[in-house]
Amino acid sequence: MTRIPVGVLGATGMVGQQYISLLKNHPWFEVKFLAASPRSAGKKFRDAAKGRIHFEGLAESVGDLIVADANDVSQAAAAAKAGQCAFVFSALDMEKDEIRALEDSYAAIGLPVISNASAHRWTPDVPVLIAEVNSHHTDIIPIQQKARGWDKGFIAVKPNCSIQSYTTPLFALIKAGYEVKKLIISTLQAVSGAGYPGVPGLDMIDNIIPYIGGEEEKSEMEPLKILGSIEGGGTNTAGFIKNSDFPGISAHCNRVPVSDGHTACVSVEFGAKKPSIEEVKKIWTEFRGLPQELKLPMAPERPIIIIEENDRPQPKKDRDRDKAMAITIGRIRPCNVFDLRFVGLSHNTVRGAAGGGILNAELLKHKGYIF
Amino acid sequence: MTRIPVGVLGATGMVGQQYISLLKNHPWFEVKFLAASPRSAGKKFRDAAKGRIHFEGLAESVGDLIVADANDVSQAAAAAKAGQCAFVFSALDMEKDEIRALEDSYAAIGLPVISNASAHRWTPDVPVLIAEVNSHHTDIIPIQQKARGWDKGFIAVKPNCSIQSYTTPLFALIKAGYEVKKLIISTLQAVSGAGYPGVPGLDMIDNIIPYIGGEEEKSEMEPLKILGSIEGGGTNTAGFIKNSDFPGISAHCNRVPVSDGHTACVSVEFGAKKPSIEEVKKIWTEFRGLPQELKLPMAPERPIIIIEENDRPQPKKDRDRDKAMAITIGRIRPCNVFDLRFVGLSHNTVRGAAGGGILNAELLKHKGYIF
Amino acid sequence: MTRIPVGVLGATGMVGQQYISLLKNHPWFEVKFLAASPRSAGKKFRDAAKGRIHFEGLAESVGDLIVADANDVSQAAAAAKAGQCAFVFSALDMEKDEIRALEDSYAAIGLPVISNASAHRWTPDVPVLIAEVNSHHTDIIPIQQKARGWDKGFIAVKPNCSIQSYTTPLFALIKAGYEVKKLIISTLQAVSGAGYPGVPGLDMIDNIIPYIGGEEEKSEMEPLKILGSIEGGGTNTAGFIKNSDFPGISAHCNRVPVSDGHTACVSVEFGAKKPSIEEVKKIWTEFRGLPQELKLPMAPERPIIIIEENDRPQPKKDRDRDKAMAITIGRIRPCNVFDLRFVGLSHNTVRGAAGGGILNAELLKHKGYIF
Amino acid sequence: MTRIPVGVLGATGMVGQQYISLLKNHPWFEVKFLAASPRSAGKKFRDAAKGRIHFEGLAESVGDLIVADANDVSQAAAAAKAGQCAFVFSALDMEKDEIRALEDSYAAIGLPVISNASAHRWTPDVPVLIAEVNSHHTDIIPIQQKARGWDKGFIAVKPNCSIQSYTTPLFALIKAGYEVKKLIISTLQAVSGAGYPGVPGLDMIDNIIPYIGGEEEKSEMEPLKILGSIEGGGTNTAGFIKNSDFPGISAHCNRVPVSDGHTACVSVEFGAKKPSIEEVKKIWTEFRGLPQELKLPMAPERPIIIIEENDRPQPKKDRDRDKAMAITIGRIRPCNVFDLRFVGLSHNTVRGAAGGGILNAELLKHKGYIF
Repeated sequence: MTRIPVGVLGATGMVGQQYISLLKNHPWFEVKFLAASPRSAGKKFRDAAKGRIHFEGLAESVGDLIVADANDVSQAAAAAKAGQCAFVFSALDMEKDEIRALEDSYAAIGLPVISNASAHRWTPDVPVLIAEVNSHHTDIIPIQQKARGWDKGFIAVKPNCSIQSYTTPLFALIKAGYEVKKLIISTLQAVSGAGYPGVPGLDMIDNIIPYIGGEEEKSEMEPLKILGSIEGGGTNTAGFIKNSDFPGISAHCNRVPVSDGHTACVSVEFGAKKPSIEEVKKIWTEFRGLPQELKLPMAPERPIIIIEENDRPQPKKDRDRDKAMAITIGRIRPCNVFDLRFVGLSHNTVRGAAGGGILNAELLKHKGYIF
Repeated sequence: MTRIPVGVLGATGMVGQQYISLLKNHPWFEVKFLAASPRSAGKKFRDAAKGRIHFEGLAESVGDLIVADANDVSQAAAAAKAGQCAFVFSALDMEKDEIRALEDSYAAIGLPVISNASAHRWTPDVPVLIAEVNSHHTDIIPIQQKARGWDKGFIAVKPNCSIQSYTTPLFALIKAGYEVKKLIISTLQAVSGAGYPGVPGLDMIDNIIPYIGGEEEKSEMEPLKILGSIEGGGTNTAGFIKNSDFPGISAHCNRVPVSDGHTACVSVEFGAKKPSIEEVKKIWTEFRGLPQELKLPMAPERPIIIIEENDRPQPKKDRDRDKAMAITIGRIRPCNVFDLRFVGLSHNTVRGAAGGGILNAELLKHKGYIF
Repeated sequence: MTRIPVGVLGATGMVGQQYISLLKNHPWFEVKFLAASPRSAGKKFRDAAKGRIHFEGLAESVGDLIVADANDVSQAAAAAKAGQCAFVFSALDMEKDEIRALEDSYAAIGLPVISNASAHRWTPDVPVLIAEVNSHHTDIIPIQQKARGWDKGFIAVKPNCSIQSYTTPLFALIKAGYEVKKLIISTLQAVSGAGYPGVPGLDMIDNIIPYIGGEEEKSEMEPLKILGSIEGGGTNTAGFIKNSDFPGISAHCNRVPVSDGHTACVSVEFGAKKPSIEEVKKIWTEFRGLPQELKLPMAPERPIIIIEENDRPQPKKDRDRDKAMAITIGRIRPCNVFDLRFVGLSHNTVRGAAGGGILNAELLKHKGYIF
Repeated sequence: MTRIPVGVLGATGMVGQQYISLLKNHPWFEVKFLAASPRSAGKKFRDAAKGRIHFEGLAESVGDLIVADANDVSQAAAAAKAGQCAFVFSALDMEKDEIRALEDSYAAIGLPVISNASAHRWTPDVPVLIAEVNSHHTDIIPIQQKARGWDKGFIAVKPNCSIQSYTTPLFALIKAGYEVKKLIISTLQAVSGAGYPGVPGLDMIDNIIPYIGGEEEKSEMEPLKILGSIEGGGTNTAGFIKNSDFPGISAHCNRVPVSDGHTACVSVEFGAKKPSIEEVKKIWTEFRGLPQELKLPMAPERPIIIIEENDRPQPKKDRDRDKAMAITIGRIRPCNVFDLRFVGLSHNTVRGAAGGGILNAELLKHKGYIF
């Protein structure tokens, strides 16, 4: 089978590189187009990323590609015409307004944009996808295309890396019939979440930082859109995704000296109907989403893996499970104040960034939006 | 002024050493008696602690003291008789039952025992003291002495190192008239809390551990005793400290790669009457306890220091404030789910262990229980 | 092809587990026998290693094997008779004298012992093998067997984990005709080299330790045996490996907060004939050993990988190259005092422990000593 | 006594802050003038350094000082005229050429410049001072002033932070009559040496970096100037400091995950006359320099402290000894290849930066160059 050619915007950054690395042997997609800042444009990727390469062998696979200027959409248009770019992964790192405008431009020339950036997450008709949770939100895409007058292009984004470790587990409980009313969460987030150079080394030796700019708001709000419903979109009405009313979420986000893997300590209050600890474990163990049913290449076999040892999950030991795409959960126990407590872990630059984006693209290909 | 001679039980352990270090130039107390395991007994402290010394200059101050066998109370009795030991700090590290029995034996021979160990924390007539919070709980001491038939000896303990960063702030709010109903807490605790050798190095490189054995129970229960009231103790009735009914506490305790300093992310629900953020800040800024009024040597000038920078408190930057005895608080903000959120930090081996013990001893001396 | 059944002595320790993990899908060998301390004996491996498992999926592959008592050779003998154990990997962790005696006992009942322990490294007729360097030292095995009256059993060991990063490169230069006269080396060694629990966490946060017990002696002496020659072994003379006279080695061994991967900073003085920097690079790039010629399963494609970036090799980025079996070298430059400087890195628990042991076993199978 | 008013150039950087912190209660000097980049100029120090403060209480002492523009020398001139600035500490962080020119400008308006920057270290008539080693190099100052036509102003610098741990010990041996011919050194350097933000956090978790740009050249060359002699400077001849011919130095510089404290592993070859290990220890223990004789406020009591424990010095345990100004040395032992091996440690931002600069200023005040 011929692989679909794909571009990566922001290719020299950490997430961009992660995309290239994960797509190296992908059965469906092949990286044929790279774009980055004007500083990198015109250089071979090998040279543009020099001294910043974080993934072994990266330069060997796409090292000779000439990096395009991400700000100049015409270069992607030319690549598309030449059959070198059927859609793009966006890992752009600029001001939000710029990213929004730029991603729009790519969509306008007919390129689907699967974005890692936060810029479009609150655009009403842009879906924020976790493939196992809200795959039906792709139904907003034709509405989005129609509203913008876009033909094949569209924008779909993935949520913030901090929410993977609790949103899917909570969805599984909701799907099983348990209302989730309130959540209080503390995260212990890895340094790679801040990109490179990111957090200064001095601050990550014998220290933690109890603050990550903007992260708590994202952690509290994004799950509500993901759990929301598509409204409008009929004749003469704008389509949009309406937030779910529940759960109320309060997040404390902390940076800790860990390379990869965001951990969340979660307390959950259910509605009137409350599952037992055993039911919770059963629901999570048996949970499967559309990616599992479809056996999408990047999908983990089980979205949620329960670890029974008391002192797990731990980032170093558990972040890489099932291609680093599985969420590992441990310490499932009653909460003194709410109903349920647990610890969730997910790999922030794979499941929470490039891997999650690739899984979304696979879903969109399956649904015929990417071809 | 002649200093009161004091002994340290468990002198070669990390907390024992911290006691010796902090007492080096203490105006009231002087270390004259050291006891440890039979393995160390009979050796000079200098030699017994060899290869384990964690505090600079430790061996110079008490290096020539011959270490007694902590299991053999007669050695302390002899030291007491010789005017070398008026009371003891207990930093014993054994099975709980053994510690309980041993601390009883020391009290029985007339030595007040100020203990860092958890063994006696749930003994009904033993006070668990945070000097700024429940100094009136020392009133149980005569009741305790009478019940046991002890003369001068008694047992007073300090709480677990994990609760310092939120119990004093919450008490200040309660004292100001605000009922605290519910707490959900996540701690990020330092490695020194596990003693030495403690947590294996391999587990603290690029990792966190979302579990500390027994720590969540202590974090949830001990504040209730500290906030409780003395009951009984009259003729023919046993005296005891009755737990406070509130708050309900749920704790998630995590070990992180930090040397010293426990951080807590706290969400608070008040009763009907709720303070504004500004009131909270005012209450904490103005809070003073008995140790401050008495200007006890180990007391910090202000028990609570508020830091306004967004990304503070941080263990490395803030744990040492005011002799490492102050609690630093930051990120005071409303909670989406409860009423108030904040981050508290306290130095676990100073405020949360030896420093807190010394402050308690100073309080007990002031009250005439130590002399 | 039926795989050869192999046993692992010291199976619950870190190196033992590494053996099991690396052998999971080995084409020639299959783990069928596990032995450990009496404490673990009689339990399923799954239960015996509980709370200590360092490698994902370990319990799934061999979890149901009943752990034998490593001190009771008769259990291995029974396994051998039952076709469950044709040879053993020894990762025993006891006193040296005990290990030596125990490994002898296994050899005496006909089991080849490929050992990771240091106990037999200075036994004159026991080869210390780096498969790419001194594969001809296997010729001492028949001499050893004859001297001990052993039939199929024998003992072969691998060297200390600290020497891998410079011994192979130096051998390559010697083989190319350049005498290596003097070496001054500083190592920065990973924490996993000390096993588990190993180095206390408190010592590996914001710290390094400029000392590792016994490591400098091993780093200075073991290369001399590896570069030495077999002497004697004829009728009536004992066979032994005579140390090479050169190079003189001085080692400074440091422990650093790195999980895996030992780095060495090396200064080299050659004899009269001195290679240019370009020649050194050419020699190392082109160097291949017997394992490469034979394409042994565990052999890296190239034993030595040169990295040209200024700031490499780095443990986190380079330790895993080519199954973690390649040595990566960087910063090849002249020395102000000697002739040549470079930085070498090798993975201490793979190339420097279990992986190196497996490669040795593959070599010994190829040569017919294991079957 | 009225304290001499002093300015700090580069006040908002890490070294600038360290100066302010260390001078807080200095008996001779008082910080009255601060200058930094145009971005900070015109702001209160409190606001200019917001979010970058690394030292507790810094803003309280000088927080209200208005930061001057370091590029605009007229502001310092005005401060000098107003009696607010008698000399400056330079912790400028710019291009070397700019620093050189700017420091010249400050000297030209009559202000002595005690610099931490490397810009002027190779200016032939600028002394590179370690107060215990080459205090006589201040004799070049009048020569420097005359050559430039400067009146009261002059430039004196301190060496790189990496050389403190071996230069003073070697000087002590040379002074005792032992020629030091060759040195091979590996350093394990702290992250604070790279300033802030400095080394990215991702690179300092589970990693070391075997390279620090420019550091090996400095480590090899600067000791030669410090050990050199003043030549020329008479009528019609330029004065300069001639490098010492010995020792030949080869340095391997590594960055390790340590906050503060540079460790060096040193191998030394002496000339024909070689001290015994006991003599070396005696020389170092008894060594005192001019700062010790004069009892300068910042001088450690003993410049060199020997630690006998096998596994010391360690950065976390030993860097702060004697106001963080003492060099601690351990592992004194013979070298297999050269004559002597040892491990030296010094605090890089105190002894190796601001503390060393202050000690130099004290020396210069004593000699009458600062007043």
